[in-house]
Amino acid sequence: MCNNISFLGPKGTFTHEAAYILEGNLIPYCTIPAVMESVSNGECQFGVVPIENSIEGPVGLTLDSLAHKFDLKIFKEMVIPINQNLIVNPKTVMNDITDVYSHSQAIAQCQEFIRDNEIQPHYAVSTASAAKSILGDKTKAAIGNSKAAEIYGLEILKPNIQDLDNNETRFVVLSKNDHEPTGRDKTSIIFSIYEDKPGMLYKILGVFEKESINLTKIESRPSKKGLGKYLFFVDFYGHRKDKTVQNILNELDGLTYFLKVLGSYPEF
Amino acid sequence: MCNNISFLGPKGTFTHEAAYILEGNLIPYCTIPAVMESVSNGECQFGVVPIENSIEGPVGLTLDSLAHKFDLKIFKEMVIPINQNLIVNPKTVMNDITDVYSHSQAIAQCQEFIRDNEIQPHYAVSTASAAKSILGDKTKAAIGNSKAAEIYGLEILKPNIQDLDNNETRFVVLSKNDHEPTGRDKTSIIFSIYEDKPGMLYKILGVFEKESINLTKIESRPSKKGLGKYLFFVDFYGHRKDKTVQNILNELDGLTYFLKVLGSYPEF
Repeated sequence: MCNNISFLGPKGTFTHEAAYILEGNLIPYCTIPAVMESVSNGECQFGVVPIENSIEGPVGLTLDSLAHKFDLKIFKEMVIPINQNLIVNPKTVMNDITDVYSHSQAIAQCQEFIRDNEIQPHYAVSTASAAKSILGDKTKAAIGNSKAAEIYGLEILKPNIQDLDNNETRFVVLSKNDHEPTGRDKTSIIFSIYEDKPGMLYKILGVFEKESINLTKIESRPSKKGLGKYLFFVDFYGHRKDKTVQNILNELDGLTYFLKVLGSYPEF
Repeated sequence: MCNNISFLGPKGTFTHEAAYILEGNLIPYCTIPAVMESVSNGECQFGVVPIENSIEGPVGLTLDSLAHKFDLKIFKEMVIPINQNLIVNPKTVMNDITDVYSHSQAIAQCQEFIRDNEIQPHYAVSTASAAKSILGDKTKAAIGNSKAAEIYGLEILKPNIQDLDNNETRFVVLSKNDHEPTGRDKTSIIFSIYEDKPGMLYKILGVFEKESINLTKIESRPSKKGLGKYLFFVDFYGHRKDKTVQNILNELDGLTYFLKVLGSYPEF
């Protein structure tokens, strides 16, 4: 079987760090949909993408692509701590730096540090491309993980410059099939509700309550059909092959306008 | 009374367009927290900021700042359609363009157009600063509203290049006090729930159900305390001075870990 694993690149991103947990031939793809496409068309057996960050929230493009564009399953989840570092060219000191480059989420996570040091922030496509872009210029710094510094021969001038602790990102490994039951599983679903029937979300949560199944996540995203119309992303304990979870999914099918099961996988 | 109105600038943004609905002395501020601060410290009577977009979802910085940093009330809401245009220097044709600049949300809203035309996207701080940055260079285009083009003497080469229709943004007018009852009002609240008590969201929605009050919005945001811990932003019909709404708020006070009423205001 094909042993290729795609991940949101370039090399040196936090997703690359997460993908290292898997065994296989790691291949960077430049966008989240491109990672998903590589699994859909069979080029890769698995694809690794970020799905939510504890500070910045859901990764919209991952959720939207899973909801609307690809029919992939979650095979595994991984949670890794996000430590942002100030990356510089060798022998740079703090006073040399006037400008800093990184992905918009990394810039957002280090706002206080950037303001306190009076550095001008600039957006880059990824933390790794930011690191690449500062090569040879001491007035420029990048924000990213230690792998990005390592790959480009750069140094970490200040570690852990993020504003808040508890900064962690959840990644999912996507595949054509989800995971067999392990006895300690979670299931992810997406649904939308009938807009003209008030109280439907209450009824839906009541189904989980009745079966004593706890939600581990409930997020809303705009359905792109107008303000006030949402898709709900819900994670809960149990495997879709469990009798209780099957009962829940059957009941939900009658209560929702749209329902998609993203799969069952072992809890991280 | 002070007649200053702050808005998320620079001039030429969609927020500027929304703020035109109000009468007063419009003053641009460069960040969402700066708009809020100008109202908090009395420099401005009102401040206008975006709160959610029908495609891209909630504006995280607005919700987070209202939850954690400022004690402001929503006085008014406004919804305006977002039409994105391809803005160019005079006499530019499509084939001249190699690069396009805009705010990350605008880039996200026009992904298909950008891909189909094989143009390289770049992030700018705002749609207006993007327009300014392309002045005099025919290989560069910006994406933004017609006001941005007008201000900088630029032209619209292609109107309505956004991927999806139903693209509208909801703006809120913030003040130190909310609005008196008009008979057709909405109320916005933020709450978080006890993590160790499953089923609390179900109980909370049950309070609204019992009083037959319909929610117009429910959004979750990470509480920044770790994955799976959320703040909920809920809008519903009624004014906080109504007896029914007072009953609901009293009950919610006992069921939530944190509860903040953002105010009551006329429905748009």
